Amino acid sequence: MHPPRTAVIGAGISGLTAGKMLNDYGVPYTCFESSDRIGGNWAFGNPNGHSSAYRSLHIDTSKHQLSFRDFPMPPEYPDFPHHTQIKQYLDDYADAFGLLDAIQFENGVQSARRLPGGGWELDTQDGRSRRFDLLVVANGHHWDPRLPDFPGEFTGRSMHAHHYIDPSTPHDFSGKRILVVGLGNSAADIAVELSSKALDNTLTLSTRSGAWIVPKYFAGKPADKFYHTSPYIPFAWQRKFMQVMQPMTAGRPEDYGLPTPNHKFFEAHPTQSVELPLRLGSGDITAKPNITRLDGETVHFEDGTASDFDIIIYATGYNITFPFFDPELISAPDNRIDLYKRMFAPGIDDLVFAGFAQATPTLFPFVECQARLIGAYAVGRYRLPSEAEMHRVIVADQQFYTGHMLDRPRHTQQLDHYLYEHDMRTREIPAGARRAQDQGAPRWAGVGDAPAVRAETVAAAVATGGGQ
Amino acid sequence: MHPPRTAVIGAGISGLTAGKMLNDYGVPYTCFESSDRIGGNWAFGNPNGHSSAYRSLHIDTSKHQLSFRDFPMPPEYPDFPHHTQIKQYLDDYADAFGLLDAIQFENGVQSARRLPGGGWELDTQDGRSRRFDLLVVANGHHWDPRLPDFPGEFTGRSMHAHHYIDPSTPHDFSGKRILVVGLGNSAADIAVELSSKALDNTLTLSTRSGAWIVPKYFAGKPADKFYHTSPYIPFAWQRKFMQVMQPMTAGRPEDYGLPTPNHKFFEAHPTQSVELPLRLGSGDITAKPNITRLDGETVHFEDGTASDFDIIIYATGYNITFPFFDPELISAPDNRIDLYKRMFAPGIDDLVFAGFAQATPTLFPFVECQARLIGAYAVGRYRLPSEAEMHRVIVADQQFYTGHMLDRPRHTQQLDHYLYEHDMRTREIPAGARRAQDQGAPRWAGVGDAPAVRAETVAAAVATGGGQ
Repeated sequence: MHPPRTAVIGAGISGLTAGKMLNDYGVPYTCFESSDRIGGNWAFGNPNGHSSAYRSLHIDTSKHQLSFRDFPMPPEYPDFPHHTQIKQYLDDYADAFGLLDAIQFENGVQSARRLPGGGWELDTQDGRSRRFDLLVVANGHHWDPRLPDFPGEFTGRSMHAHHYIDPSTPHDFSGKRILVVGLGNSAADIAVELSSKALDNTLTLSTRSGAWIVPKYFAGKPADKFYHTSPYIPFAWQRKFMQVMQPMTAGRPEDYGLPTPNHKFFEAHPTQSVELPLRLGSGDITAKPNITRLDGETVHFEDGTASDFDIIIYATGYNITFPFFDPELISAPDNRIDLYKRMFAPGIDDLVFAGFAQATPTLFPFVECQARLIGAYAVGRYRLPSEAEMHRVIVADQQFYTGHMLDRPRHTQQLDHYLYEHDMRTREIPAGARRAQDQGAPRWAGVGDAPAVRAETVAAAVATGGGQ
Repeated sequence: MHPPRTAVIGAGISGLTAGKMLNDYGVPYTCFESSDRIGGNWAFGNPNGHSSAYRSLHIDTSKHQLSFRDFPMPPEYPDFPHHTQIKQYLDDYADAFGLLDAIQFENGVQSARRLPGGGWELDTQDGRSRRFDLLVVANGHHWDPRLPDFPGEFTGRSMHAHHYIDPSTPHDFSGKRILVVGLGNSAADIAVELSSKALDNTLTLSTRSGAWIVPKYFAGKPADKFYHTSPYIPFAWQRKFMQVMQPMTAGRPEDYGLPTPNHKFFEAHPTQSVELPLRLGSGDITAKPNITRLDGETVHFEDGTASDFDIIIYATGYNITFPFFDPELISAPDNRIDLYKRMFAPGIDDLVFAGFAQATPTLFPFVECQARLIGAYAVGRYRLPSEAEMHRVIVADQQFYTGHMLDRPRHTQQLDHYLYEHDMRTREIPAGARRAQDQGAPRWAGVGDAPAVRAETVAAAVATGGGQ
């Protein structure tokens, strides 16, 4: 068979792992990257503006959970690597698997149009248009800042956490009255950094939904070492267990003056911070509920209080955006996008999404797991069920992973990696392989102009990919 | 009876509480303070140089444990108040009890000479000399920097943590190779502050003895809320219990790359830090064992490694120093000073020390407890045992409180406040009251020139003081 002419949009962790697995399955591909470097979000100061990393950022998942299964993190790395170390790790990954040759740098996809009868026409930064059989979208979901819309107008400085770098960049954050909006990991990190008494700021943190705070360490070990969901115990029971155990590790948010969360522990993504409770308990950070109104330099809160501020930093998350698609074809209003196994849009069989989930504990092995399926799919070793079945499973999966969660744009992508990976490995990939036997080769087999894939390459790759 | 003419050296927490209790017992006194303000160590930027506070310093004991029994902390204070709030609290304490009138500011004691037959002659900054019957020494033990003596010479910048203020004071601590020596609370705080990636330093922490790290919060509550030694269970058993429980809260120091402590948990003062384990586990701080040799800008460590540094910050503790005494009379070589109940030097019955202990969990109620005894002692309601008995008890107490501890200058002052307070309240003060009945009025009663103390004042004060 002939492999599909394949394009990958983006050379971040999702695009890189997709490329590596396409290589494993003998599928040539072209990766279009708008920046001059790989790494996407993890390329601090990325010239394409797609990195949200601040100078002091350390990843919130320990290296033990973070490693790609195919490429362990160096043993000398600390438990929670700095963003420079993550970037180095991705550079080493790209080197080790020879991924750079397939990447066209500073040549992002500007438009991706589906052709009648299938296939894609891509317009790229270099002014060219090219056709592909299969399109892998890996453009990330942490680069298009989401801003809330409060009534009134704030006359001080407003910015999104995406643009925060350090206490003197992009503004001088000293001697200021600062309001951080949000209570995710970025909000916690930025609030902690700017609340240091050495900077002489006053720091207020406003949250709409509240959040449960979990430590990065527990009993001297990275806390996520204790986190491993089992596929053999009902998920709801495991959530209940976590809810019962939680107060013994980190206490209730009210202990630190935070508003009561509008959800139980584990019903929304918890915030990992060792320092936030301390700063709240030391009076360096003042917690407030949601904003009701902006008025000049005054901000009004739901508890009836109001304060004046110089700067508001919105750490309010990101939109899922596909600037290269006609929104009529594909879009994600309020971050909602119905994808089978978070990868396939029913009815568009030559399009695969990679990395569009908020996987717990981390995205790294999750995108690697998806990438394995992409390779198998490209060579016809995995086929999709009927559209009707895909729609049914999308609803069931959504209910399973996030049915217990708040109905918020931030949480639509929530997913437990262990259960996802177990489902893929034990049910979905074998079922897709059976469908492939029933249905025969995919539409693009035999029509491409690439050399045929050698059968033994595919067999070896499937064996590796299925085994983990 | 006539109260003694009483002098108090120092208007920090020990001098202030001593003054308050002398007032309660109707004893007029003069407090000599070398600075222009009260607060001593807690007067950030104290012009007399006796404050070791850095700009970001929060007290390491929660307000629940910290409050004077006679003057609760304001309920709106955070769990771990900032040094500015501690200073405000002391100002409010001084106001509430009218303590300022008795203080002579910028008039420290330069020389205190014992007179033949008892009593003291004090030379003060104003050039005057005055005589007193009773001298209370409350000049603190956190102001005279202790520096280790390593072989060789370091040609970079050396400083003691006492002089550290913030990342740009007294030097520009950015883009530097910094070595912090020590693993006490100051070492941990300064290392954490200067290791922020935003400052672009490399931060190494060298420790001789190692230390156990304990969190400021446990299960959402200030960790010291769980700490209350019982006088009814053998102290050794309680230490053993703490040793067994410790790994469940904060893990072993080796978990974070710190050297193995040369002592069990609770055998030396633990270090309270939420952030240090995180910074070590994030690779922002590198831990090293003790220094063996200095050589130019190179520092050699016990593990055989060596690194170059721009700055060494010695967070290596403080000397107990009495600059106003002839060392032949009283001194504290290696921070050792044998005092009965940490207050009385056998053979010098008109001298009382206040605040010379490292009380766990905190000095605040401890100095208040000592101050109560000072008031009772001044008016003859408490008398001392024989010199021989005092010597016997000094040895026994030292063995009880610190016999399990490392033999280090830092630990000579270690003491459990709960057990001390219980001993004072249930045994020592009643015994001293019985001795007072047997022995009659103290030497200075009837010889002073102050008005007689009204009996009902004394009775009321003793009732309050004894009750807690």
